[in-house]
Amino acid sequence: MIIGELINSSRKAIKPLVEGYDAEALIAIGQTEAAAGAEFIDLNCGTFVHDEAERLTWLVEKVGNVLDMPLCLDSPDPRALRAALPLVKNPVMINSISAEEERFADILPLALEYQAKLVALCMDGDSIPQTAEARYAIGSRLIDKLTNAGMLLSDIYLDPMVQPVSVSKEGAQVILETVRKIRAAYPEVNCVCGLSNISFGLPNRKIINRYFLAQAVAAGMDSFILDPTDRQLMGCYLTARMLAGGDKAYTKDYLKAHRQGLFDI
Amino acid sequence: MIIGELINSSRKAIKPLVEGYDAEALIAIGQTEAAAGAEFIDLNCGTFVHDEAERLTWLVEKVGNVLDMPLCLDSPDPRALRAALPLVKNPVMINSISAEEERFADILPLALEYQAKLVALCMDGDSIPQTAEARYAIGSRLIDKLTNAGMLLSDIYLDPMVQPVSVSKEGAQVILETVRKIRAAYPEVNCVCGLSNISFGLPNRKIINRYFLAQAVAAGMDSFILDPTDRQLMGCYLTARMLAGGDKAYTKDYLKAHRQGLFDI
Repeated sequence: MIIGELINSSRKAIKPLVEGYDAEALIAIGQTEAAAGAEFIDLNCGTFVHDEAERLTWLVEKVGNVLDMPLCLDSPDPRALRAALPLVKNPVMINSISAEEERFADILPLALEYQAKLVALCMDGDSIPQTAEARYAIGSRLIDKLTNAGMLLSDIYLDPMVQPVSVSKEGAQVILETVRKIRAAYPEVNCVCGLSNISFGLPNRKIINRYFLAQAVAAGMDSFILDPTDRQLMGCYLTARMLAGGDKAYTKDYLKAHRQGLFDI
Repeated sequence: MIIGELINSSRKAIKPLVEGYDAEALIAIGQTEAAAGAEFIDLNCGTFVHDEAERLTWLVEKVGNVLDMPLCLDSPDPRALRAALPLVKNPVMINSISAEEERFADILPLALEYQAKLVALCMDGDSIPQTAEARYAIGSRLIDKLTNAGMLLSDIYLDPMVQPVSVSKEGAQVILETVRKIRAAYPEVNCVCGLSNISFGLPNRKIINRYFLAQAVAAGMDSFILDPTDRQLMGCYLTARMLAGGDKAYTKDYLKAHRQGLFDI
């Protein structure tokens, strides 16, 4: 599944549009994401520290609901989520919960009340464990706690926490290994990541992002928060999905994208 | 390891050069491969059915030895190999042996006599088994027989036999799974493949080849028979190797390639 990442106030081009309540421009951006293949539209206004709840409710009402798309409310703040969730008309996803106790206790009731899909980060405090075993252990614990509380396995999106390969040499391998472990133990649980963190601090970031996406799909990652208007990246996604295949539909998707000129780049 | 595939008489541009004994032109092609990062130069004149031995010895003497590069003699014909092997001055690789009895009995003594690295195909007859388990079983049997005969694990290059994803929907997954199994059980054994077969019959073949290469590297494939003068493919190889990393040298290789403009494409 592709979650379109563009409507995020930490992006230079987006911040002034949220600041100025320019719904029209933001709707146009969301429409481009949907046309390019996004299945959920991420809404993130986390840079508005003092009035995130008000900004997020505005985004949902004046942008997300007008787009008439499934929405991903991208905030760790239970106040902002509690204000915005009742307004969402279409299927909704919350990004994110973690194994940290207070955050878990705050977010879980919201996810249950609004039957939201839920991104669950494989970390339990401020630090990210450095081995695949440790991340898997946290993920596994999260799955148990969430399903015990009544969540469906298929509504859980574990995020193994991509770190830059420039910082952690084995960072990419740890992600791939964590995903393989999760998918082997819990085939119904989804795995999601914010892709571009992998290339932070290195040149030619888009190339690194693409090849890592191909590797992640092969390892079993099924959902990505990314820029769907990046044609080469979407071409990569469709190709990798065909290679991970076993499903004739994926070859059809690839051929359709070819006919539509997606690979003319 | 990169094995440059260009000097192959089944390629349209190469056939007339071998036919006309144009050593100069072939040397130039080999030099381009070496400059682009090939560590072995493949020599294949299998289309010359009637005089392959004579053509291969000529290629070794007048092209391969002038290039002064490690050579990969790409022939299943023991007669051609026996004629050409004594002439090779640099390290040599034979492509290939298989588990098929007669071929195994013919090729093994040559590999041992000339201390050649050896590509071993995961097939034992004319057909290629369709599951990763079956290919791994053949690979494992080959490794046992080869090491019992005295070959070093590190001189064995198992080829899991890439098949087109257009023909076998799960073809890519079977390769990745086979490679993971081999590398887990025999970390010292190498895995090699002819890459481009994966994309046979589909459009935008180069894109498929690249993303599959990235996935194969992540699964543990360490050697590729490919066109090293394809800059995007080599960029993919360097990027995938950095991501598979754990070795600071790979980040250095990536940054060096960036500075040299390899990604300006």
